[in-house]
Amino acid sequence: MTDLLIVGKRALAAQPFSRLLGAELTEFSAELVEIVVPITEQIKQQNGFVHGGVISYAADNALTFAGGAALGAAVVTSEYKINYLKPGIGAKLIARAMVIHAGKNQVVCRCDVFAVGADGAEILCAAAQGTIVKLPDRSARDV
Amino acid sequence: MTDLLIVGKRALAAQPFSRLLGAELTEFSAELVEIVVPITEQIKQQNGFVHGGVISYAADNALTFAGGAALGAAVVTSEYKINYLKPGIGAKLIARAMVIHAGKNQVVCRCDVFAVGADGAEILCAAAQGTIVKLPDRSARDV
Amino acid sequence: MTDLLIVGKRALAAQPFSRLLGAELTEFSAELVEIVVPITEQIKQQNGFVHGGVISYAADNALTFAGGAALGAAVVTSEYKINYLKPGIGAKLIARAMVIHAGKNQVVCRCDVFAVGADGAEILCAAAQGTIVKLPDRSARDV
Amino acid sequence: MTDLLIVGKRALAAQPFSRLLGAELTEFSAELVEIVVPITEQIKQQNGFVHGGVISYAADNALTFAGGAALGAAVVTSEYKINYLKPGIGAKLIARAMVIHAGKNQVVCRCDVFAVGADGAEILCAAAQGTIVKLPDRSARDV
Repeated sequence: MTDLLIVGKRALAAQPFSRLLGAELTEFSAELVEIVVPITEQIKQQNGFVHGGVISYAADNALTFAGGAALGAAVVTSEYKINYLKPGIGAKLIARAMVIHAGKNQVVCRCDVFAVGADGAEILCAAAQGTIVKLPDRSARDV
Repeated sequence: MTDLLIVGKRALAAQPFSRLLGAELTEFSAELVEIVVPITEQIKQQNGFVHGGVISYAADNALTFAGGAALGAAVVTSEYKINYLKPGIGAKLIARAMVIHAGKNQVVCRCDVFAVGADGAEILCAAAQGTIVKLPDRSARDV
Repeated sequence: MTDLLIVGKRALAAQPFSRLLGAELTEFSAELVEIVVPITEQIKQQNGFVHGGVISYAADNALTFAGGAALGAAVVTSEYKINYLKPGIGAKLIARAMVIHAGKNQVVCRCDVFAVGADGAEILCAAAQGTIVKLPDRSARDV
Repeated sequence: MTDLLIVGKRALAAQPFSRLLGAELTEFSAELVEIVVPITEQIKQQNGFVHGGVISYAADNALTFAGGAALGAAVVTSEYKINYLKPGIGAKLIARAMVIHAGKNQVVCRCDVFAVGADGAEILCAAAQGTIVKLPDRSARDV
């Protein structure tokens, strides 16, 4: 495990909401960020699919970590958009995010969220794109 | 309480993830949908603010319900974008969604998410816009 | 005509592409920006409707001017999303943009684009939301 | 030149606004759509860069054509978001769009817009993602 991944895992574990969802950071580099969320009953909506809010969480968080890896600093997601493509069903979600443009204070990333079956087969269930910005200081989100 | 609100509350309660977050539907009409999420420790990120994923959940779900009220049918959110504006702090989140254009099978809505302090003061903390589509049938998200 | 509107009209007239489209700034204040684009043959697509690219231009530019009015500085649009709602037909387009959150270096705005008939009736044909950022200097877009 | 490309070129040429901009379709398949816009004085903004509205036009149109290639039908762009990354400078813009998910009536695509210098070097200047929908009939945009 790289030092960076260890740092990233610690950052994710510091988020109570990520702990609540059992999210795990499995890749954390300037090239790729990967966050895994196990699919349990409690994250579903009324039809037995993963709630869109959880898919959004996975995308949002992967985007943020990708921006953080690129900027090497405390960051927040400024904005993103997401298209839901397929129902989230199976064993787990994997959100994979990549930087497509890094400026000095701002990074634009894309993220694909896959639903992974018990057999390991991956189905693209959402696609996101967003902006991550360096935090001026830890107490302010307002950039 | 209107009949529609009773129906809506039942729909929200049928979502395990919404129950996990303690979300409550407080308005449900063709004019306005309002979803309240109490701010607890477990929905926060590492800096003590509400996790962006929860703000996204609130926006996404309010958009979906607004689309459902307008279309009078089972719906899903097809896509949305969200801008985070201020940290989510205080006693609760309120997501308010409104229809801006209703077609036969598709609705476009906007949603504002407010952070509400113990004194009831509301601060706009996120703004979203998205598309909600009628479900062809209950088993398919792929429109 | 306010001094600010005069300044804004000069800024719009300094854009060759806006001159090509015959765009006109009709409101320019911290509360509202309004850009009018006459509907001519040359801005249409194959079905006789205004090309989506022109509707996007109107939204993008109104968002930028709204951000500029709020920040009182040279700005660029960092990102936006747009939903097309109705075909652009009639005599002119009116894009109206408003600030929903102003930070120190960044502003989030919404914009509605209307198609206006010869009788003055307005139909909402697109809705946009985006982020406008202060330019660090005139030569750099990369923030 | 493939038959499909010939059909596509004819469709683009049928758009007065695309003719005004001198846009050209250089790839048109289910795998890739490419639209080229020569950079001339008339498409610029006040700082000598390509106007954002033209970059949006290129992205929007490439997304639409990619959706049309995938659906094999008359389509419209329902919505998209775009992040501007770098100033549009050089000899031409190239917008490249690809389908990331195709349903029966709806397609989600991504598009990258590059600014190409006189030496052929490409710089990514914008990234977009959007939804393209099949037209119920030629006269209605309202899906």
